[in-house]
Amino acid sequence: MSRPSRFDILFEPLRIGPVTTKNRFYQVPHCNGMGRAYPSPMAAMRGIKAEGGWGVVCTEQCDIHYSGQHQRELRLWDAQDIPTLARAGDQIHEHGALAGVELAHNGGHVANLESRAVPIAPSTEATRSLFPGTARAMDKNDITAFRRWHREAALNAKRAGFDIVYIYAGHSMTLPINFLSPTRNKRTDEYGGSLENRARLLRELIEDTKEAIGDTCAVAVRFCIDEMMGPRGITADGEGYEVIELLGELPDLWDINISNMAYDGATARFEQEGWQEKYVKRVKQATTKPVVGVGRFTSPDTMVSMLRSGTLDLIGAARPSIADPFLPSKIEQGRFNDIRECIGCNICLAFDSLGAPIRCTQNPTMGEEWRRGWHPETIPPKDTDDTVLVVGGGPAGLEAARGLGQRGYDVILCEESRELGGRVTREARLPGLATYGRVRDWRLEQLKRMKNVQLLPDNRVTADLVLEAGCSLVAIATGATWRDDGVGRYHAEPVPGLDDVKVFTPDDIMDGRLPRGRVVIYDDDHYYMAGVIAEQLVAAGCDVTFVTPEPTVAAFTQYTAEQKRIQRRIIELCSAVHTSTTLAHAEPGTAHLACTYTRRETAVAADAVVLSTGQIPRDTLYQELVELGPAVLEEAGIRRVVRVGDALGPGIIAGAVHSGHLFARTLDTALTDETPYRRENVTPDWDRPLPSRGTA
Amino acid sequence: MSRPSRFDILFEPLRIGPVTTKNRFYQVPHCNGMGRAYPSPMAAMRGIKAEGGWGVVCTEQCDIHYSGQHQRELRLWDAQDIPTLARAGDQIHEHGALAGVELAHNGGHVANLESRAVPIAPSTEATRSLFPGTARAMDKNDITAFRRWHREAALNAKRAGFDIVYIYAGHSMTLPINFLSPTRNKRTDEYGGSLENRARLLRELIEDTKEAIGDTCAVAVRFCIDEMMGPRGITADGEGYEVIELLGELPDLWDINISNMAYDGATARFEQEGWQEKYVKRVKQATTKPVVGVGRFTSPDTMVSMLRSGTLDLIGAARPSIADPFLPSKIEQGRFNDIRECIGCNICLAFDSLGAPIRCTQNPTMGEEWRRGWHPETIPPKDTDDTVLVVGGGPAGLEAARGLGQRGYDVILCEESRELGGRVTREARLPGLATYGRVRDWRLEQLKRMKNVQLLPDNRVTADLVLEAGCSLVAIATGATWRDDGVGRYHAEPVPGLDDVKVFTPDDIMDGRLPRGRVVIYDDDHYYMAGVIAEQLVAAGCDVTFVTPEPTVAAFTQYTAEQKRIQRRIIELCSAVHTSTTLAHAEPGTAHLACTYTRRETAVAADAVVLSTGQIPRDTLYQELVELGPAVLEEAGIRRVVRVGDALGPGIIAGAVHSGHLFARTLDTALTDETPYRRENVTPDWDRPLPSRGTA
Repeated sequence: MSRPSRFDILFEPLRIGPVTTKNRFYQVPHCNGMGRAYPSPMAAMRGIKAEGGWGVVCTEQCDIHYSGQHQRELRLWDAQDIPTLARAGDQIHEHGALAGVELAHNGGHVANLESRAVPIAPSTEATRSLFPGTARAMDKNDITAFRRWHREAALNAKRAGFDIVYIYAGHSMTLPINFLSPTRNKRTDEYGGSLENRARLLRELIEDTKEAIGDTCAVAVRFCIDEMMGPRGITADGEGYEVIELLGELPDLWDINISNMAYDGATARFEQEGWQEKYVKRVKQATTKPVVGVGRFTSPDTMVSMLRSGTLDLIGAARPSIADPFLPSKIEQGRFNDIRECIGCNICLAFDSLGAPIRCTQNPTMGEEWRRGWHPETIPPKDTDDTVLVVGGGPAGLEAARGLGQRGYDVILCEESRELGGRVTREARLPGLATYGRVRDWRLEQLKRMKNVQLLPDNRVTADLVLEAGCSLVAIATGATWRDDGVGRYHAEPVPGLDDVKVFTPDDIMDGRLPRGRVVIYDDDHYYMAGVIAEQLVAAGCDVTFVTPEPTVAAFTQYTAEQKRIQRRIIELCSAVHTSTTLAHAEPGTAHLACTYTRRETAVAADAVVLSTGQIPRDTLYQELVELGPAVLEEAGIRRVVRVGDALGPGIIAGAVHSGHLFARTLDTALTDETPYRRENVTPDWDRPLPSRGTA
Repeated sequence: MSRPSRFDILFEPLRIGPVTTKNRFYQVPHCNGMGRAYPSPMAAMRGIKAEGGWGVVCTEQCDIHYSGQHQRELRLWDAQDIPTLARAGDQIHEHGALAGVELAHNGGHVANLESRAVPIAPSTEATRSLFPGTARAMDKNDITAFRRWHREAALNAKRAGFDIVYIYAGHSMTLPINFLSPTRNKRTDEYGGSLENRARLLRELIEDTKEAIGDTCAVAVRFCIDEMMGPRGITADGEGYEVIELLGELPDLWDINISNMAYDGATARFEQEGWQEKYVKRVKQATTKPVVGVGRFTSPDTMVSMLRSGTLDLIGAARPSIADPFLPSKIEQGRFNDIRECIGCNICLAFDSLGAPIRCTQNPTMGEEWRRGWHPETIPPKDTDDTVLVVGGGPAGLEAARGLGQRGYDVILCEESRELGGRVTREARLPGLATYGRVRDWRLEQLKRMKNVQLLPDNRVTADLVLEAGCSLVAIATGATWRDDGVGRYHAEPVPGLDDVKVFTPDDIMDGRLPRGRVVIYDDDHYYMAGVIAEQLVAAGCDVTFVTPEPTVAAFTQYTAEQKRIQRRIIELCSAVHTSTTLAHAEPGTAHLACTYTRRETAVAADAVVLSTGQIPRDTLYQELVELGPAVLEEAGIRRVVRVGDALGPGIIAGAVHSGHLFARTLDTALTDETPYRRENVTPDWDRPLPSRGTA
């Protein structure tokens, strides 16, 4: 394959201060839930990106001082932290990319839970977390000290081998952006008041950093050009643009985005590819320096148009580089159909927010590069004589067949319905979830080229058929069914009275069986399902009351940065929203709700109830085969029957894809005595000397 | 000093299976937010407890397998985890205590965010977190495997040098207790149905562990005798007691508590010392084995009565051992007035819940033993010629004076009001917070014996007086003032219209200035203050509407395990509770509220508004002194003026005490370039071999 010449522009080198990137693919800093707690997994993940062709690969944010500490991300407090960063830098360099590091001080955004230091901020303010603390206004000594810490961290970043060093003024959560904010900076000295004054700290940091390391390292600024809070914050049409006018030529690169993660990291449910263009498009009018921006870019033509239109010089990406670390290589080689496109679900962000290693719905190897030795593009050839029957063509079954097919195994995949994709095909029809179909599309694209994999849709498999299939391995990927009894996180026993009322589950809705009239949606799942059903039913003319035992709508989506936008939408669409409320019991025409705190009941008129509370594995076929006993299976030439994906444990799509991939790699999904991945511990360092201060 | 003989019973040795504790002080397992992430800090903290006289010191829970992993606590998955545990065990042994370890598998309580393993449980159930996952029902192979993992972990615990090995069937969050639960165990095999069947797994685990290590190690069971959910769960009067009847003689020790943390770890606001007695008192009727139980015991006489009445054999403690690691030594030596009593605030638990190292309101050295080298009882003698003026007699000022006094410094402490204690004295008068007075009482008790510390209440200090005082160091501990403008986490600018209505702050309430009639309490602080004011105002006859921009009442108290109990109480007391709602603006007679999602407004009749939104430091004196300039201060013999406690950064009481202690140790509270504590990193272990499985 070769690429059309219109894409050549993406592979032109570009000078960034004293360094040069080989192409225009720029992996902007992104958190990943690994950071300093998982140094080798983090480093290997960054290295794989470089191997996949990204010209620049950055780390996540990196704290520079104990007074502005994030709980999870990287640190560069002093030389003790260099080895972890250097490991990442080395991996990035090994594959010919430039390594960038984002220095950060989180000011009043954090409560310094570890160090116990009183947070510092431009002006006195409550800390931006629930923690009952107050950040103190920095005096001149504090500002001088902060500049000194930042300079020292930049020198340590250079010592760690990095090529691009960031000043982080983004996401409304670091000191330089908070100094810029007219609502958060109430100072009356030369750091407050006019924009020029509020920008003074940012200017000084750029100058300090250039002076310290600018000879060999590029100095970048990540700048939030719009805080998305209207006139109360920085706006792209106002002071955001003016900052670029003021400081445009000082750094070597501008990395422009918006704030906060609900907007900068918007999911596909809320924003389409390239939605940040309108905020970024004027930046290049005010600076001659390279500009990088993001927009969940997965379309090579969109990328080209961003460069040709003069909007961006570099195609920034976080999520698309997670879903497909080899995106640049694939474009370079003209392998456009091989691009594994990000679906914009933010499960990557969720795991960082949860303090756990990143994962990805599309890329099951994300986070597993070092700990399991998994590569996103390659997989060892088959090393057994097995033939494999995969029952079920959802995300787990498709990924299992694809991975086994890539390994050279002969595979038969049977799917009972006429269309492949299982839950992703069904869910992609719900409002806002169309991109979920990409999970199916990429896999089908790969599978259609594999002669050793047979896809048999419209094929219902029975235990007898399994015995006759002549395959030595059987993977049961038959998915899950939504419960219709109300059992979930709140109710351990069925909700009384449901037998007497019209009950619908997400399966009914996805099958096109919709309720009418007054509908109570009871959500004890807390992810996206109940919300998108509410959207669909309102569009279909229902009068919807939304009920959830959690204090918020779609509570889990706090981790995907969607919660506030979802709840706003649900309140606007529904007749009533009852949070901290459970469905206590039901009778014809009425749903009886109860406060989760007091058990006080309220009656709501309801022609039907939709339950989104939990799922049960569809594992009847598996149970039937197990009950046949090992002798019968052996006689049929079957050496192992395993469940994969939702049939094993119903959950997120990323879990199903990972389960299918695990099966493709190991031919099993069972728990093992030995931990199936390598891990790094904190080494007790009992005899480390005490620092000179604070030890009286 | 010597102790009366009635306390001798607390110092009688007791045999626990093959080992013997030297006394009856038993530090039960408790989480501490350090665990495997902070191995030396954790080990040193346990060692200090042993030094303080506890006969038994246990670790927190310790995961045994990647399929039941807690996010933060200890691990014993394999030999790789032994060094961290062994370090703790060695510290405990060094001071003559027995070391206990609590082996755990968290079953369906966790989502295995790191390992990505499908959780396992007695029966299919939604995972007990917001994570959208489903635990699968264990089959016989899983049960056999689990028993094998548990046995191997017990052997590793023995190899790590532990004396007491736990089977953890507590807090409704581990496999053996979930198997016991009639609502969560729906099995139809020999592990489900009758109590004997549901207890089978626990029995097997005890037998396995006895067989594996019972020759040299005691085998303990931590058992939740009441799940506090009535007939839906295990009850102390029902199956909880029957379990003891059934298995009473099998283990070497029963560690009895209740579930969940809101009840087992109840704060002083909800339960008094010894509240678990009624659940535990019958246990000894059903077993001859030693029984340990908890109840936030700080009174030596209560402890004696627990033994004499035959309720307990050992005095279990978690929080009292955090507030005073030397509690047993002090009782042994008859130094009863030196006991630093736990105030039952649960800030210790909060930091574990937040994933950060433990701290304690009463004991500022908690968590700092290794990283700063702080000891709870000793402090190096003075090493400068300074004399110190402390302005302010709240928690920070008292602790500063006490620590400095202990070091031998000459100290003058001036307090403007007639009573000492500052905020703890004032807050202790609010409903449910009486124990907060212990923060003052312990310090006053210590201070009254110090001839080198002068306490001067009813003394308002001006800048002139500071200059005349003749002290070389000045600590400004003047506390903070609650804001009266509505600025907090939600509003960055004052709430419009407040000038025209009656506004009260927590300071007014604590000063006895109460509103009347219809009162809107607006809480943007989210800790205890607004809630206890609501209680007080309702008791005083007000009609209270509670408003908070958070989705829950007192949202921060989710970390202190109080939130549900607080919100229930507030709903019951108040006329209305508006969550996810802000105070938008006010006018005479009316408060205008707005939904935080939609900004939709609602008007509420209000004769007065109480604002609990944030605090500002009372640092006028500090600012006046700074403005005098260094020359003037120097001339007055003053070499440094520092702020401590809330005057530096208003926050939690634990922060103020810590700040005062830091000042006493280091004579400063300023930020330093060098990190003021030592820390341990995860060591990159790039070349560690991949495990045999999962590496295809």
